Amino acid sequence: MRAVDIIEKKRDGLELSGDEIRYFIDGFTRGDLPDYQAAAFLMAVFLCGMTRSETVDLTLAMAHSGEMLDLSDITDYAVDKHSSGGVGDKTTLVVLPLVAACGVPVAKMSGRGLGFSGGTLDKLESIRGFRVDLSADEFRALARKNGIVLAGQSMALAPADGKLYALRDVTATVPSLPLIASSIMSKKIAAGANGIVLDVKMGRGAFMATLDDARELAKIMVEIGADAGRDVVAIISDMNQPLGEAVGNALEVAEAVETLRGEGPVDLREHCLAIAGHMLRLAGRGQRFTDAGEARALLEQQISSGAALASFRLMIEAQGGDAAMVDDTSKLPQASIQQPYTAAQSGYIAQVDALAIARAAFELGAGREKKGDPIDPAVGVKVHVKVGSPVGAGDALVTLYASDERKLQAAVSSLDQAFAFSAEPVEALPLFYDVISSR
Amino acid sequence: MRAVDIIEKKRDGLELSGDEIRYFIDGFTRGDLPDYQAAAFLMAVFLCGMTRSETVDLTLAMAHSGEMLDLSDITDYAVDKHSSGGVGDKTTLVVLPLVAACGVPVAKMSGRGLGFSGGTLDKLESIRGFRVDLSADEFRALARKNGIVLAGQSMALAPADGKLYALRDVTATVPSLPLIASSIMSKKIAAGANGIVLDVKMGRGAFMATLDDARELAKIMVEIGADAGRDVVAIISDMNQPLGEAVGNALEVAEAVETLRGEGPVDLREHCLAIAGHMLRLAGRGQRFTDAGEARALLEQQISSGAALASFRLMIEAQGGDAAMVDDTSKLPQASIQQPYTAAQSGYIAQVDALAIARAAFELGAGREKKGDPIDPAVGVKVHVKVGSPVGAGDALVTLYASDERKLQAAVSSLDQAFAFSAEPVEALPLFYDVISSR
Repeated sequence: MRAVDIIEKKRDGLELSGDEIRYFIDGFTRGDLPDYQAAAFLMAVFLCGMTRSETVDLTLAMAHSGEMLDLSDITDYAVDKHSSGGVGDKTTLVVLPLVAACGVPVAKMSGRGLGFSGGTLDKLESIRGFRVDLSADEFRALARKNGIVLAGQSMALAPADGKLYALRDVTATVPSLPLIASSIMSKKIAAGANGIVLDVKMGRGAFMATLDDARELAKIMVEIGADAGRDVVAIISDMNQPLGEAVGNALEVAEAVETLRGEGPVDLREHCLAIAGHMLRLAGRGQRFTDAGEARALLEQQISSGAALASFRLMIEAQGGDAAMVDDTSKLPQASIQQPYTAAQSGYIAQVDALAIARAAFELGAGREKKGDPIDPAVGVKVHVKVGSPVGAGDALVTLYASDERKLQAAVSSLDQAFAFSAEPVEALPLFYDVISSR
Repeated sequence: MRAVDIIEKKRDGLELSGDEIRYFIDGFTRGDLPDYQAAAFLMAVFLCGMTRSETVDLTLAMAHSGEMLDLSDITDYAVDKHSSGGVGDKTTLVVLPLVAACGVPVAKMSGRGLGFSGGTLDKLESIRGFRVDLSADEFRALARKNGIVLAGQSMALAPADGKLYALRDVTATVPSLPLIASSIMSKKIAAGANGIVLDVKMGRGAFMATLDDARELAKIMVEIGADAGRDVVAIISDMNQPLGEAVGNALEVAEAVETLRGEGPVDLREHCLAIAGHMLRLAGRGQRFTDAGEARALLEQQISSGAALASFRLMIEAQGGDAAMVDDTSKLPQASIQQPYTAAQSGYIAQVDALAIARAAFELGAGREKKGDPIDPAVGVKVHVKVGSPVGAGDALVTLYASDERKLQAAVSSLDQAFAFSAEPVEALPLFYDVISSR
């Protein structure tokens, strides 16, 4: 088998065999196959597409390119979630304790953020002392003992995906549905998940700008799961406006804690209950929680009883974090400057551009441009309105949390593009557009 | 400007500007732009194509990526020829002396062969002592003194093309019309040609398998020439069967010498007269040799007078070659084994597969698989029949010239696939299919 023949076959629109895809991915992972051949292959995939069977083979080849996490000594059915990334998306921080409090173990490996805001690990590191770099043994021990653990990748999970992603980034081959789908699913499969809830974001602040694209991506991932023997539910959720109010690392932790307490923004709470509900029902495998209402009631009970918050606190403490910051979120890092951004006119909010909000948070220092850049945990924004909210001129639309006057001004400029107003009432945006499931 | 944005633009089927193409090619030539970005770009060009204007910009960017040969002190109008490569194609060896004998200076840089048979330089090196590695000063001095010189590239002509070609070879991006056309034309333009005769081969032994593809390639190259201010004539010639009889380095030199003496195979003679005629008429620029018949008569006169052969001998001697080998071609390297390959049946020859013939010569050691491999100048084949020839069972179709019994057997196996027979008379193949010209 020769790499150049595999590239040629894909270039000519033919379907690659599983052996060919494994040969290519294994060779690339080992470094036997040069970047330039992988780059040509990626562009051929981008332009010619991949069949369902090719996409599944690619996913499995990437999943098996490194170590595979085996959680079978912790649970006989591991559930995981993945979000395609959104502005203000602190769902994992809420959902994991919620599910764990119901007695379903969650042992999740997460990533750092690149771009406008921090990733889940960055958010958690707002809590003094919290350790995300756990050894594989620590990770397992905590999962077994507490039923909840959330850490960085301590193992080389799906290294092919990491290598390919870095190459896609510089060869204009990122926005390809089979490549996106296989990248996401390979990591979930390598991380040992039997059941996966995918939160596919759609809208101005998401990778998928249209409902059609989001549905197509969701469909491919559900198909991959089905063919790879995993249960997958994909929820298509709105990302035209930010999720919840807070965008910024410590601000989002505080909002997650509020939500676990039964407070917090309604949209975030509903979103988290939906995701957690699907995770519960997957974990119940058609026996427990088959009824959506029953699952929801159980989750709400974890919030009202304080069990969900206790589960979060347990995770923080177990990983060396300062639990006092959970008990009192005012102890989290605080920005020196707080300034409102007010409405120049009255009316109904017609648009809260998630991308412009994200850019404002980024200008304040909440995100990183490239790997290794420092982020400022305290800064960010809180957005007080949603599409449809009535406002009066001079009302605060946003509160900015800044550490620096210059950055504050840049953030304000970004916000100037974020809002649109209407004289007539505007309908609220839906939280969800669709659910696509493999069973 | 960023390389990734240029790749993305091409990927999306948009037209690149001249500035963008120059930025990409210059960066790649300097090594500022990594191979993997060039590989993704090449695949995007392969699959999305290039407009006429993009192809011209790419050609000129590659032509200007290194030194440009300036022949203006030797002639005010330099003519050159290029062949897209064929089996038994020793045209250059005949055409250059023919044209030079008419008083039109020819100063040609040529390449080595890769694949089934040697290139022009390899063929000439069959002649003891012949030097192809001339310095730029020697090259010019010989062109000025003798009006004929044929050497390897002493200068870094179109280095971008060399670098890109090496990458295309391993990324399945060779057979792309804009990439092939710009590769050929960039070298001709960098080599200082004002007028270019392109010999585009079509058929089983050629890169272009169909007449449509050959016409399309010819048309693109003529257009590039027109837009770049060069005169271009493209001849589409047959390469279903070998050109002439000899395939193999010394054997081809001997056949070229025979042809210059007025002997040699009729098809080769006709082919060379046609190519040389177009070169003369380009060099005459509408004043001398406007009439094809007049040009042909002048060329035939160079053969019958011995002037063409004398010009070839002069070139060989001037570059250190043993002219005695020209005077008596039996002094050229001789193979130790000569064996006929005979017809198993009688009838009319319906096919002489140029590719199978080439493979036989390669099996004997006439070509090289990779750069730097040694070749055996003495070995090869002489094909005694053409499509349409009547043969009797037991007639010699081919004579094999071998140095080794094992290689001989492998060559015979290749020949077993080369011939097809018909009980009915078969029409001869045409020499030419079309002529496409910029004026």
